[in-house]
Amino acid sequence: MDALTEIGVGMLGYAFMGKAHVNAYRTLPYMIQPPPALPRLEAIAGRDAVAVREAAERYGFRKSYTDWRQLVADPAVALLDNGGPNDVHAAPCIAGAKAGKHLLCEKPLARDGAEAKQMLAAASRAHVKHMVAFNYRFVPAVRQAYELIRAGELGEIRHFRAHYLQDWITDPEFPRVWRLDRKAAGSGALGDLGAHVVDLARFLVGELKSVAALTRTFIKERPLPTASKVPRGARAAAGGKRAPVDVDDTFAAAIELEGGATGTLEATRLALGRKNHMGFEINGSRASLSFDLERLNELNLYRGDGRPETKGWTEVLVTEPEHPFIKNWWPPGHVIGWEHTFVHEIAHLLDAIANDRDVAPLGATFEDGYRAAVICDAILESAREGRRVEVGR
Amino acid sequence: MDALTEIGVGMLGYAFMGKAHVNAYRTLPYMIQPPPALPRLEAIAGRDAVAVREAAERYGFRKSYTDWRQLVADPAVALLDNGGPNDVHAAPCIAGAKAGKHLLCEKPLARDGAEAKQMLAAASRAHVKHMVAFNYRFVPAVRQAYELIRAGELGEIRHFRAHYLQDWITDPEFPRVWRLDRKAAGSGALGDLGAHVVDLARFLVGELKSVAALTRTFIKERPLPTASKVPRGARAAAGGKRAPVDVDDTFAAAIELEGGATGTLEATRLALGRKNHMGFEINGSRASLSFDLERLNELNLYRGDGRPETKGWTEVLVTEPEHPFIKNWWPPGHVIGWEHTFVHEIAHLLDAIANDRDVAPLGATFEDGYRAAVICDAILESAREGRRVEVGR
Amino acid sequence: MDALTEIGVGMLGYAFMGKAHVNAYRTLPYMIQPPPALPRLEAIAGRDAVAVREAAERYGFRKSYTDWRQLVADPAVALLDNGGPNDVHAAPCIAGAKAGKHLLCEKPLARDGAEAKQMLAAASRAHVKHMVAFNYRFVPAVRQAYELIRAGELGEIRHFRAHYLQDWITDPEFPRVWRLDRKAAGSGALGDLGAHVVDLARFLVGELKSVAALTRTFIKERPLPTASKVPRGARAAAGGKRAPVDVDDTFAAAIELEGGATGTLEATRLALGRKNHMGFEINGSRASLSFDLERLNELNLYRGDGRPETKGWTEVLVTEPEHPFIKNWWPPGHVIGWEHTFVHEIAHLLDAIANDRDVAPLGATFEDGYRAAVICDAILESAREGRRVEVGR
Amino acid sequence: MDALTEIGVGMLGYAFMGKAHVNAYRTLPYMIQPPPALPRLEAIAGRDAVAVREAAERYGFRKSYTDWRQLVADPAVALLDNGGPNDVHAAPCIAGAKAGKHLLCEKPLARDGAEAKQMLAAASRAHVKHMVAFNYRFVPAVRQAYELIRAGELGEIRHFRAHYLQDWITDPEFPRVWRLDRKAAGSGALGDLGAHVVDLARFLVGELKSVAALTRTFIKERPLPTASKVPRGARAAAGGKRAPVDVDDTFAAAIELEGGATGTLEATRLALGRKNHMGFEINGSRASLSFDLERLNELNLYRGDGRPETKGWTEVLVTEPEHPFIKNWWPPGHVIGWEHTFVHEIAHLLDAIANDRDVAPLGATFEDGYRAAVICDAILESAREGRRVEVGR
Repeated sequence: MDALTEIGVGMLGYAFMGKAHVNAYRTLPYMIQPPPALPRLEAIAGRDAVAVREAAERYGFRKSYTDWRQLVADPAVALLDNGGPNDVHAAPCIAGAKAGKHLLCEKPLARDGAEAKQMLAAASRAHVKHMVAFNYRFVPAVRQAYELIRAGELGEIRHFRAHYLQDWITDPEFPRVWRLDRKAAGSGALGDLGAHVVDLARFLVGELKSVAALTRTFIKERPLPTASKVPRGARAAAGGKRAPVDVDDTFAAAIELEGGATGTLEATRLALGRKNHMGFEINGSRASLSFDLERLNELNLYRGDGRPETKGWTEVLVTEPEHPFIKNWWPPGHVIGWEHTFVHEIAHLLDAIANDRDVAPLGATFEDGYRAAVICDAILESAREGRRVEVGR
Repeated sequence: MDALTEIGVGMLGYAFMGKAHVNAYRTLPYMIQPPPALPRLEAIAGRDAVAVREAAERYGFRKSYTDWRQLVADPAVALLDNGGPNDVHAAPCIAGAKAGKHLLCEKPLARDGAEAKQMLAAASRAHVKHMVAFNYRFVPAVRQAYELIRAGELGEIRHFRAHYLQDWITDPEFPRVWRLDRKAAGSGALGDLGAHVVDLARFLVGELKSVAALTRTFIKERPLPTASKVPRGARAAAGGKRAPVDVDDTFAAAIELEGGATGTLEATRLALGRKNHMGFEINGSRASLSFDLERLNELNLYRGDGRPETKGWTEVLVTEPEHPFIKNWWPPGHVIGWEHTFVHEIAHLLDAIANDRDVAPLGATFEDGYRAAVICDAILESAREGRRVEVGR
Repeated sequence: MDALTEIGVGMLGYAFMGKAHVNAYRTLPYMIQPPPALPRLEAIAGRDAVAVREAAERYGFRKSYTDWRQLVADPAVALLDNGGPNDVHAAPCIAGAKAGKHLLCEKPLARDGAEAKQMLAAASRAHVKHMVAFNYRFVPAVRQAYELIRAGELGEIRHFRAHYLQDWITDPEFPRVWRLDRKAAGSGALGDLGAHVVDLARFLVGELKSVAALTRTFIKERPLPTASKVPRGARAAAGGKRAPVDVDDTFAAAIELEGGATGTLEATRLALGRKNHMGFEINGSRASLSFDLERLNELNLYRGDGRPETKGWTEVLVTEPEHPFIKNWWPPGHVIGWEHTFVHEIAHLLDAIANDRDVAPLGATFEDGYRAAVICDAILESAREGRRVEVGR
Repeated sequence: MDALTEIGVGMLGYAFMGKAHVNAYRTLPYMIQPPPALPRLEAIAGRDAVAVREAAERYGFRKSYTDWRQLVADPAVALLDNGGPNDVHAAPCIAGAKAGKHLLCEKPLARDGAEAKQMLAAASRAHVKHMVAFNYRFVPAVRQAYELIRAGELGEIRHFRAHYLQDWITDPEFPRVWRLDRKAAGSGALGDLGAHVVDLARFLVGELKSVAALTRTFIKERPLPTASKVPRGARAAAGGKRAPVDVDDTFAAAIELEGGATGTLEATRLALGRKNHMGFEINGSRASLSFDLERLNELNLYRGDGRPETKGWTEVLVTEPEHPFIKNWWPPGHVIGWEHTFVHEIAHLLDAIANDRDVAPLGATFEDGYRAAVICDAILESAREGRRVEVGR
C-alpha cells in the first residue's frame, strides 16, 4: 500500500459542530478502509485563549490560535474547516482561498446570497476544493434515495415536501443567542434548518423554480445572554437586559420545482415536541420515498408496480452492506448515529483533495451553498412582498 | 321512555357517499343509546331508474325517484340528504330549503363561494337545520383534539400543517370522471380533499388569514369514461375519446391563521402510495398534536410539561369510554372504522333536528361550507395571480 | 335474481358479543353484495325479563325469551347464536343440535376439551352447520396472511409467535366477574384470549405438537360484584364480600408445531397499557409476516427475495379491492373497524347454511373449537405438572 | 485538572467486536468529559501474523502478538480485552487474572456455566476488575428503563418478555462458521443472542426462577467454510465439504422470575427480515416499558396514572441531556448509534479501574456472565429433558 496523503486541518470553532467534525477526522482513518487520506489535526482557532487551548488538548490539535488569520497563515494547514458562527464564514473562507487552502464551511454558507457569491468566487478563482457541510447528503438512507431517483426508479417526480422542525426556542425566556440575531446569523430557522431541506430538494429532485412563502417571528424580544459565549441550551440570568429578535422563528413555502413537481417546505424552532425532525416525502409516477432524520437508519419506499395484495410502504433498514457507506460499519441491523454523516462527508472531501476529484455532485460545493442562499433570499423576498418569487440563477 | 321522533329521510345519490350515509341511518338507532331520533328511509332519487330502484331495495327506502324534485316535493321527507355530484348540490338544497326540508349536503358544499353563499342564504332564510358533511369532525380522535384545544391544553397555537394525499389518478389513463371536470366539480383535489383540511383548520384552530398558494394539473388530458356513470376506479375503453382536465391535480399553500399561527396545506391525488392519507399536526406553546386518518383510532400528543426523562409523543388509542363517541361502541382497543364518522355525524344532525339544537359548532353548517369555499377560492386566486391573498369574510 | 333464503336467528345473550353479532346480521344484507342469505332476527333469550325485552326492541328481534330452551323450541329459529357465558355454551348448543338448529357459538367453545367434545359430537351427529366465533380469521389482513401462506409464499415456516395482551383487571379492586370464576369460565386469560391465538396458530401454520407452559394468578382474591349482572368495566361496591380467583391471569408457553416450527404463545389481562393487543409474527424460509389487532387494517410482510437495497418490511394497508372482503366496503385507505370481522364471519356461516357449503377451512367449526380446547387443556397440564406436554388428537 | 491515569490495553481478537471496542477506546477520551482514564492501545494479539500486524497499524496498537500468552505476559498491559471466539475466553482470562490484569470479556462469558465459574473464581481470587461485555446495559434507553424501575415507577413487575431475532443463517448454504460449532461456541442462538436477553432480564427485573424451554436446529448440516477465518457473511466455495451443526438455531422459553413475574424469552438467527431485532416489554402494576434495539434511541413508556383521555404509550426519544450518557453527545434529536454502547461500557470499566469502583450493578461482572451461563444451561436442560427447570444459584 502506498503511503497515504496527510492533510493538515485547521479548524475554526470548537463548539457543537467542531466536536462533530473532530470526531469525523479522528474516526475515519480506522473506519473507512482504506481511508482516502490521513487528516492531521494541525491547529484550532477561537477567540477565548483558555477555551481554545483546552479544545486543542481535548481534541488533539497541535496548536491553538486566538485569531483565525493565524490559521490561514499557517503553512501546515491545507484544509480550513470553518465551523464558526455565520458571520465568521465569509472572511476566513475568502482569505483561506486566497492562501490556497481547501475549504470546508458549515451551513448556511453565508448570511445571504451576495455574501455566498463572494465566497464562491474566491474559492473558484483559487482552484481549491470547497465544500459546504450539508451533511444530510451523507446519511446512508438519503444517499440511497438519491441513487434510486438517479436510476429512474421513481419515474417523473410529482411532489417534494419537506420540513425541519425543532423546539428549542419555545420558551420565551430562552436567550437571544447569536442564532437569533440577524447580523450574526443572516436569518433564523430559514438559514439554520431551512437551508438543509432546500439543499436536499436540489440534491434529490433538482432546482426550485418558485417559492410562495411567509415567515413569522413569534417571540419578538428575548433576554440577552449573560456572557458572550452562551451554550445552545443556556438560560439568561434574572433581571438581564432584553433585545429584539430580528430573524424568523419559522418559514413556510409552497414550492415549484423546475422539473415540474410541487410541494411545501417548512422550518421552525417552535414545534413543541419535535427535536430534530427533518423529514421529506417524494412522490413519483413510479415510486415514492419518505425519510425522517430522527430514524435516520430507515428509508420508506412505495413502489407502484407489483401485486396489489402485497403492495405497501416498505421500511428499508439501511444497514446492509449493499447500502451506501455501510460496509465501513457494522453488521445488518446495528444502527449508526447522526455523527456518522460527518465521517462520510469528510472522507468524501479528503478523497477529493487527495485524489483531485470533484466534490460535486455527491457533496455540496460552495456553488450549492450559494444556490441555497439564493433560494433562502427568494423565500424572504416572497414573504416580505407577499408574492410568488421566481428563483433566480 | 317517550316515543322517539321519526324523521323521514330523502336521499339524493346512492354511490360511495350514499352507501356511507345509509349505513349510518341504519346503524345509529341501535348503536347510539338512546338514539336522538329515528330516521325513516323514505325515498331515494337518482337519474337511472333501474339503478335507483335497486338501491332503494338494497338499502330499504320506501320509494325511488328519478328526479330530485320529487324528493323535494315529497311531504314525508323532512331531511334532504344530498350526496350527488358537486353540480347537483345547489339547486336541490335551495329548493329543499324553500320546501322547509332540513339539509345535509356532501362536501364541498358548492363549486365556489358564490354558489355556496346562495345555498347558505336559502337555508338561513328557511330556518331549517343545515349541515355540510365534513365528517372528519366526527372522528373520535379529532373531536378529542378539539376538546383539548378548547380546554387550552395546547396553549397558544403556533403551527397548523395538514395534508390530504391520495393516489387514485396517478395513471394517465384513468378516465376523466366528473371529479376532473370543472363544470361538475368546481375544482379538483382542492375542493374534494383540500376542503376537508381547510375545515379542520377552522374547526380546530380558527379562521385563516391569508394563503400563498399554487396549483398544478400534471395530466392535462384523459380518456373520457365510456358511460355516463363511471365508478370511481373505472378505466376507459380502448380507443375512447379524450378530454381536457381543467381542475387542479394538486394544490399547496403556505398559510397564516388569524390567531397568529402559520403552516402549510396540501392536497393531491397523485401521491403514489398514499391512499387516504389525511393528516395534521398542531404545535402549541404548551402541547402538540398529530393525527393520521389511516390510523384514525390514534391521536398523538406531546405535552411540554413533565420530567424530561419521560417526555415524548404519546400515542393515545382513542377507544376508551371517556373518549368522544366511544361509549356507543366497543371495549378499549377494539378499533372502529372510517364509516363510523357518519354515524356520529348524522346522530348529531338528527339530534339538532329533533331537539331544535344548533348544528354548530361541533357540526359543520352551510356557513362552514361557505367559509371553506371562500378559502378554496382564495387559494385558486393566489395560485392564479402569484400573490398572497387575504381570506375575505 | 332469485329470492334470497331467509334464516331465522335465535340469539342467546345480549351483552358485548350479542351487540357485535346483531350488528353483523343487520349490516350484511346491504353491505355484502349479494348477501348469501337474509337473516331474520327471530328471538333473543336472556334471564332478565326486562333487559331481554329491551334488547329485543333495541336490536329488532320479534320475540324475547327468558329461557334458552324456548329459543331451541322455537320452530322459526334455524340458527342458534350462542353468545352467553362459557358455562351456558354446552347445554343450549347440544339441545339446539338435537333440535336441528345450525349453531354459532362464541369462543371458547367450552370450558375444557371434554365439554367441547360433547358439543362437537352433538353437532356432527345432527348434521347441522356449526361455527365457533373465532372472528379474527375474518380480519382481512389475517385472511390475506392465510392466502399468502397457502400459496407457499412464506416457504417453510420456522417460527410462530403470538400474544394477546389486555389490561382490564390490573386493578386488584376490579370485581370477580364470571370470567374470573373457573366454574363459569373454565379458565382465565387462557380460554378468553389464548384460545384466539391458539386458533390462529392452527389456522395459519397448522397443528401444535407440544407445549411447555406456565400459568399464574397474580391477584388471588377480588371483591364480588354487587349484582349478578356486572358490566365488563364494573367496580365493586365498598365493603363488599371477596371471593377467590381460581383461573389464570396469564399463561406463557414455548411451543412446537407439527410442521417443525417453534415459537411462543402468551396471553394476559394484566399487561398495563395493552388494550386489545393481539399480535403474531410468522417467519418462513422465504418471507415473514406480522400483524397487530390494534392496527387491524395493516399487514406487515418481509420478502426474502429482491434487491438488498430496497428490501424491508412492507406495511400493506389491507384496504384494496383485491384484498379479502374489501370490495364490500370502501375505497382504498378508508379503514374498517373491529366489528366488521363479524359481518364477514356471519356472512360466511349464512352462506354455508343457505348453500350447504362447508364452514371449514376458512371458518372455525366446533372441531376447531374442540382442538383449541384440547390445546388449552395441554397448556394447563404442562403448567401444573412442570413438563412439556404433547398435544393429543 | 490532575493528570489522568493511563491504562494499557491488550486486546485479543480484531474482528467485529475488536473494531467496536477499539472505536470506544479511541473515542471516549474526547467524548466523555472528563474521561475516567486514558486507555493506551498497547498490544493486540491474533493468530495470523500478517492480519494482526495490519490490525495493529489500522487501530493504533503499539505492538502485535500472535499468541495471547504474550499479551498476558506484557507488563504494559493492565487491561486484557478478550474479543476472541467463545472457546478462547476462559484460558486467556484466567491467565490474565493470575497475572493481575483487569478483564473485559465478550459475551457469552463462557461455553457453559462450569467454564464460567472457573473464570469468575480466577477473577475474584485475583481481585481485578472484571466485566463481561453485555453492552446493551449501556444503551441510554435501557439505562433509563433501569432507573425508572429502580425508582419504583413500574410498581410490581408482572411480565417480562424479550426476544432477539436475526436472520443471517436463513440460507442453508451459509457455512458452518465457528458460531455453529458447539466445541467453539458452546451453544448457538442461545449463547450468542439469548445471553443478552437473559442478562437484561436479570439487570432490569431480577433473577429467573424457572424456565420451560425448547431448542431446535433447523438446518442440521452446512458447508464448511473454505478457510479457517471466514467473515460473518461468508459463503462456502462450491463443492466444499459439509459438517453437522450441533448447536441450536433457536430457543424459546416460558419463564418465571423470582419476583413473581412471568413471560417469554426467544432467540433465533432464522427470523427472516429481522436483522438485529432485540426487544423487550415489561408490564408493571403502575407502568409498562418497551424497547427495540433497531430503534435504540427510543423508549416506550405507558403510565397507568393520569386522565384516560390522554393516556397512551409515550415514545421517549432518549436524546435529552437529562437522559443517561447523552450529555456527552449531541443536542436533542441527534440520534446515536449502536457502537456508542461500547463507549459507555468501556468508560464505566475504566472508571472502575482508575478509581477502584465496583463494576456492578450497572456493569455486568463475571458474576453476571456466570449467572447468565447457568440460566442458558438450564434452558438447554429444560429443552433436552422436556421439563421445567428451576434455575440454580
